[in-house]
Amino acid sequence: MIFRQLFEDSSSTYTYLIGCPETGKAVLVDPALETFDRDLQQLQDLGLELAYTLDTHIHADHLTSALKLKSITDSKIAMPSKAGVGCADIQVSEDSPLNFGTISLNPLFTPGHTDHHLSYLIDQGANQAVMTGDCLLIDGCGRTDFQGGSSSELYRSIQTKLFTLPGDTLVYPGHDYHGRSVSSIAQERTRNPRLKNGTGEDDFIGIMNGLNLAYPKKMDLAVPANMLCGQCPDDVPEGMDRLCEIGVQG
Amino acid sequence: MIFRQLFEDSSSTYTYLIGCPETGKAVLVDPALETFDRDLQQLQDLGLELAYTLDTHIHADHLTSALKLKSITDSKIAMPSKAGVGCADIQVSEDSPLNFGTISLNPLFTPGHTDHHLSYLIDQGANQAVMTGDCLLIDGCGRTDFQGGSSSELYRSIQTKLFTLPGDTLVYPGHDYHGRSVSSIAQERTRNPRLKNGTGEDDFIGIMNGLNLAYPKKMDLAVPANMLCGQCPDDVPEGMDRLCEIGVQG
Repeated sequence: MIFRQLFEDSSSTYTYLIGCPETGKAVLVDPALETFDRDLQQLQDLGLELAYTLDTHIHADHLTSALKLKSITDSKIAMPSKAGVGCADIQVSEDSPLNFGTISLNPLFTPGHTDHHLSYLIDQGANQAVMTGDCLLIDGCGRTDFQGGSSSELYRSIQTKLFTLPGDTLVYPGHDYHGRSVSSIAQERTRNPRLKNGTGEDDFIGIMNGLNLAYPKKMDLAVPANMLCGQCPDDVPEGMDRLCEIGVQG
Repeated sequence: MIFRQLFEDSSSTYTYLIGCPETGKAVLVDPALETFDRDLQQLQDLGLELAYTLDTHIHADHLTSALKLKSITDSKIAMPSKAGVGCADIQVSEDSPLNFGTISLNPLFTPGHTDHHLSYLIDQGANQAVMTGDCLLIDGCGRTDFQGGSSSELYRSIQTKLFTLPGDTLVYPGHDYHGRSVSSIAQERTRNPRLKNGTGEDDFIGIMNGLNLAYPKKMDLAVPANMLCGQCPDDVPEGMDRLCEIGVQG
């Protein structure tokens, strides 16, 4: 299996490229519009054909390149079913693995950051790996204060769906803001300051309530655009025209 | 391939168990005397036969269980050739991969923490992984102030042998003192405070010279015992008898 972790600077987003050497089929998990050219180049360099794009959730901090990639490569757009994205070709849910070539991506329903969030589990050979999107981050987790977020649900998603995986399972997050790239379930259980062993649900809710995070700069564009698979809506919020220029026009 | 990262509390040591499911053969990298029973149990639980023990270097902070494991399982003791360990069955060097079953462990000569240190590179399926012993640690590195250590050599080992590996290569260190388990070459190149991009050799030497580390508590026993593959020497330093009781008697 081919596995590449790719980084987008402006929103500190990780995109994952997973390729099947036997069939030449590939998937991009959480591809971003800003790195559209890089991702196409990576596919070409590796001799891979993009079969699917797959988002963990409707992002609030960047635009997905799902539709733009589809327009060039004829890839299919896969989205979490509970997000209700009409332009998606495939509605993904926990009971339906996404198979391409000899590879299987297994969705885990992990709401809390958003109400529709999926994490994706994959067998990498020696280890399992889980792409945790904005649910579990290294030493942290996604925020829970918009898009149907819930601290209580996030706590239960992480404790019951992720922390129950084998400790050696590699954790590949959707973002990191401090240059870290990979962790393990054992590590997060041991030292994640918000979630480690002994942290109860009420403790976690208290931590999340105290974060006082700023409103995401791009959210008023990103959420409606991502509901259109990355196409800018007709009504672009003031000052966000530039973001739409690199995207697919509405 | 089976890959397990196992932790020993008292010296914060990681032992790695690597098994070949096809042949049932296994290797333990840096097994410690304190966790001898656990490691035997792990092998048994996984239905694996221990083919080799393999140390990255002569440890100063714990005793290897190489000889004790050999006495029970008939495993062969592999040690870095430049350590000059007479009791080793196999002298390992950079040009001689250690093969067992369908698995190959590729030694990289990475002196600096000690003058004989080897790291071990392994193809895990989707990614390569490198077990870096006490050469490269997560956000850190091994000390360089004894056993033929050299900050200059460590800098060059990391820059030329490890940081030249693909960025997605997983880094599995020999220790972590903060609950972290795994990193990547890209991560260490980006954020290791002693070694990240832009840190010159002189900067690194300055950092290492300023550490003022305490003398390792067990070193006066561990180094001579590990030169005997984990057998306590005739002349046990005062107050260290207990450490020898769990080992193989001289």
